Amino acid sequence: MLTYQLKKTPGVPLYEALYRCIRGDILSGVLKANEKLPSKRALATNLKVSKITVETAYYQLLSEGYIRSEEKVGYFVEPVPRAVQATAGVAPQKTPVKNEDSLLDLTANGPVHFPFSVWSKLQREVVLDLGERLLMPLHNQGLPELRQAIATHLGQFRGMQVDPEHILIGAGTDFLYNLLIQLLGREKRYGVEEPGYGKIRKIYAAAGADCVNVPMDALGVDPKCLQNAQVLHISPAHHFPTGLVTPLSRRQELLAWAAQAPDRYIIEDDYDSEFRFSAHPLPTMQSLDGGHRVIYMNTFSKTLAPSIRISYMVLPGELMAIFREKLGFYSCTVPSFQQYTLARFIERGHFEKHINRMRKFYRSRRNQVLDALLAAPFANRLTVLEEDAGLHFLLKADTKMTDKELTEWCEQAGFRVQALSEFYHGDVPASAKQQLVINYSGLSDKDVETLKQKLRDNKPSLQGEAL
Amino acid sequence: MLTYQLKKTPGVPLYEALYRCIRGDILSGVLKANEKLPSKRALATNLKVSKITVETAYYQLLSEGYIRSEEKVGYFVEPVPRAVQATAGVAPQKTPVKNEDSLLDLTANGPVHFPFSVWSKLQREVVLDLGERLLMPLHNQGLPELRQAIATHLGQFRGMQVDPEHILIGAGTDFLYNLLIQLLGREKRYGVEEPGYGKIRKIYAAAGADCVNVPMDALGVDPKCLQNAQVLHISPAHHFPTGLVTPLSRRQELLAWAAQAPDRYIIEDDYDSEFRFSAHPLPTMQSLDGGHRVIYMNTFSKTLAPSIRISYMVLPGELMAIFREKLGFYSCTVPSFQQYTLARFIERGHFEKHINRMRKFYRSRRNQVLDALLAAPFANRLTVLEEDAGLHFLLKADTKMTDKELTEWCEQAGFRVQALSEFYHGDVPASAKQQLVINYSGLSDKDVETLKQKLRDNKPSLQGEAL
Repeated sequence: MLTYQLKKTPGVPLYEALYRCIRGDILSGVLKANEKLPSKRALATNLKVSKITVETAYYQLLSEGYIRSEEKVGYFVEPVPRAVQATAGVAPQKTPVKNEDSLLDLTANGPVHFPFSVWSKLQREVVLDLGERLLMPLHNQGLPELRQAIATHLGQFRGMQVDPEHILIGAGTDFLYNLLIQLLGREKRYGVEEPGYGKIRKIYAAAGADCVNVPMDALGVDPKCLQNAQVLHISPAHHFPTGLVTPLSRRQELLAWAAQAPDRYIIEDDYDSEFRFSAHPLPTMQSLDGGHRVIYMNTFSKTLAPSIRISYMVLPGELMAIFREKLGFYSCTVPSFQQYTLARFIERGHFEKHINRMRKFYRSRRNQVLDALLAAPFANRLTVLEEDAGLHFLLKADTKMTDKELTEWCEQAGFRVQALSEFYHGDVPASAKQQLVINYSGLSDKDVETLKQKLRDNKPSLQGEAL
Repeated sequence: MLTYQLKKTPGVPLYEALYRCIRGDILSGVLKANEKLPSKRALATNLKVSKITVETAYYQLLSEGYIRSEEKVGYFVEPVPRAVQATAGVAPQKTPVKNEDSLLDLTANGPVHFPFSVWSKLQREVVLDLGERLLMPLHNQGLPELRQAIATHLGQFRGMQVDPEHILIGAGTDFLYNLLIQLLGREKRYGVEEPGYGKIRKIYAAAGADCVNVPMDALGVDPKCLQNAQVLHISPAHHFPTGLVTPLSRRQELLAWAAQAPDRYIIEDDYDSEFRFSAHPLPTMQSLDGGHRVIYMNTFSKTLAPSIRISYMVLPGELMAIFREKLGFYSCTVPSFQQYTLARFIERGHFEKHINRMRKFYRSRRNQVLDALLAAPFANRLTVLEEDAGLHFLLKADTKMTDKELTEWCEQAGFRVQALSEFYHGDVPASAKQQLVINYSGLSDKDVETLKQKLRDNKPSLQGEAL
């Protein structure tokens, strides 16, 4: 029977720990190909963990192809390529599967420094103060107090004039996008940024709406390429993954496009504008336009935590009226407890304080990562682009490697990283190649030390032909 | 300037209190037709409330037609029919608008006796125990711990064998229905109960899917009328609004229908099965079927509070696999804080205790309402139907009045109540007429006393021809 000492590590669920142990044993050959794994129940009893812990770990192994399930028989170890099995002792080969635990992850957002004690205090206070009021059916646009707090925040922080009656609060942007598609119509064509955040296309497709790729030039999405779109979905404050900020002139051009026909709208996704490091952010397209053609969206996922599940949008008055008439039957998706807590968190200045602290933290983290890169022996072949806002920047490498070779080479060197070209859905222009998207928000202090060390350690292999 | 003493009443938001004051003044003639209302800012200052409180009250008055807005000028009182204005002194006329505050509401669910102190304690405990883990991105099906707790609960309470890996948690059933439509396909035809809960049709329509009405007979939806449907959406445990429980034989017939073609599914909405008063509930269709063709749905809106915003569904393994493949990119919509709190609430037996307490409470409430009705002078002309489960029953009246006359007569007598015929979307069969849907869950102790008194007070007018 498999026996592991599963440590409770903060931030690592027990099933994740178990998954890593079993995967490690498969990769190192301790568990042989086609060996039968213990039943979920037996393993749970042996490890003194719940059955669901084992189930979740097995499911993860299944979905990643480490094990297979045979109906009514059990789970078996899948044969793993020799090169992968060998990671423990032998020099690593170029293969897609690696001992991922040792890789520094430069692709994921990390947990932020959440203000637990204030939040917890407010949660308690809300229950004591409001009692039965927390149980009342919610206004379907969201709590008026929270909408007022958001409107005030947008006024102070983004210089926006927003009527709280035009705000709609929902459980995450995925959900709000779906509402928007029902509001604007599935028959519309939605222009999305190329390159761009892939999930948006998936949401449009699942909801039955057509997307068209709108290519970007050095100023943002290209207004000459919008002929086919009726709704344009963009992030002008800070494009993902390029980090590009759309300048005022281009914003005006895009607004002029929207004003040309009555069914044109721009969805302005302002998801991480709070983390701009220098100077003042440009006015939002929503303010430039006066709120007629622009749907403004933002989320607390980046500023607080993804698991908080609160996003919001500001609709033009006309669309809000249509929402009330056509979709007013929908219930609000965010629990009252959470909405009241967040309203007080914003009203009392905790949110602003938290953003300022996080911006400072991310700036310092960015500087550490830039310093480490500049100290690398191959620094003269790197150019850093669009580093002025959180939580990522682009790194252009002067190399003859393809993007695939480049990211694989990074993995050999100990970093998991994505190339800009991976965010294209059509052809990748030459100018977008040999660029890496460096997301530093998930790195811990220790990770930064490791990064520096790896860049030093790899010194010999990183010179000359290697890059 | 309007001046009101706005009392902070538990359960009544301030804007609702203000709305009621202004509406009262319009109806009683204190505010005259075409009189200009103070600006939102001025009224807010005068009443020492926030501007959004006034805005929300004005918006509610606007949307109900009590006032009108003239752009850049302000808000004005709309002319109100004389009969309505007269409610204060003159005998009430038959008009749709009344002094609604004095009506006993038998149409709405009330807030339940929420276990605030336990919930608050668990919320605090979760933050202290878990810290950073609360910030990790959530499993898109929902927290494994919560899914395990739900599976165990369904096993103990409903005798269901449910794999937590087949559970999907979401922010309310509206949201889950939308996911289901994306999963099963917009091109499918969805059979819904006639009569039935109107919101379901609206959701299907908004998502672009076709609904077909499936008429009900004395045993539930009629399997002979399913030719056109591919997916059947029903509530066999306790149909709304009839309260009908579908017997085993009919459940088997419906399952046989589903088994006839590979694309047929039954959505079993089990929304208030917890409040069955006598005997054991019938096995769910999901258990009868072994989980192949039945999608089981339930919610904590009824058992805890609507504002808690947690629902879930149990998918057949095959559909779960399709969900993971096609829609696995969606993020979970329920905040981690809330999911961990609810998981502990269930695991430690608080949920079961709470349901038992509420069931007892609702049974006693139902008995009080039945007693009051039986003591009415016209009791011999009433028949109570389907009173064996929460939170409503049907009341059949032996009368020559139409349903419209009957509900208007109830309003004159002091009760807001809906007729069964209002839940039909096509023709209403004769057998469904002269029946009232009595929802008693929103009544307070004081309301029950008022109910008894009103039934007594109305004695003279309720005899003979009146009913």
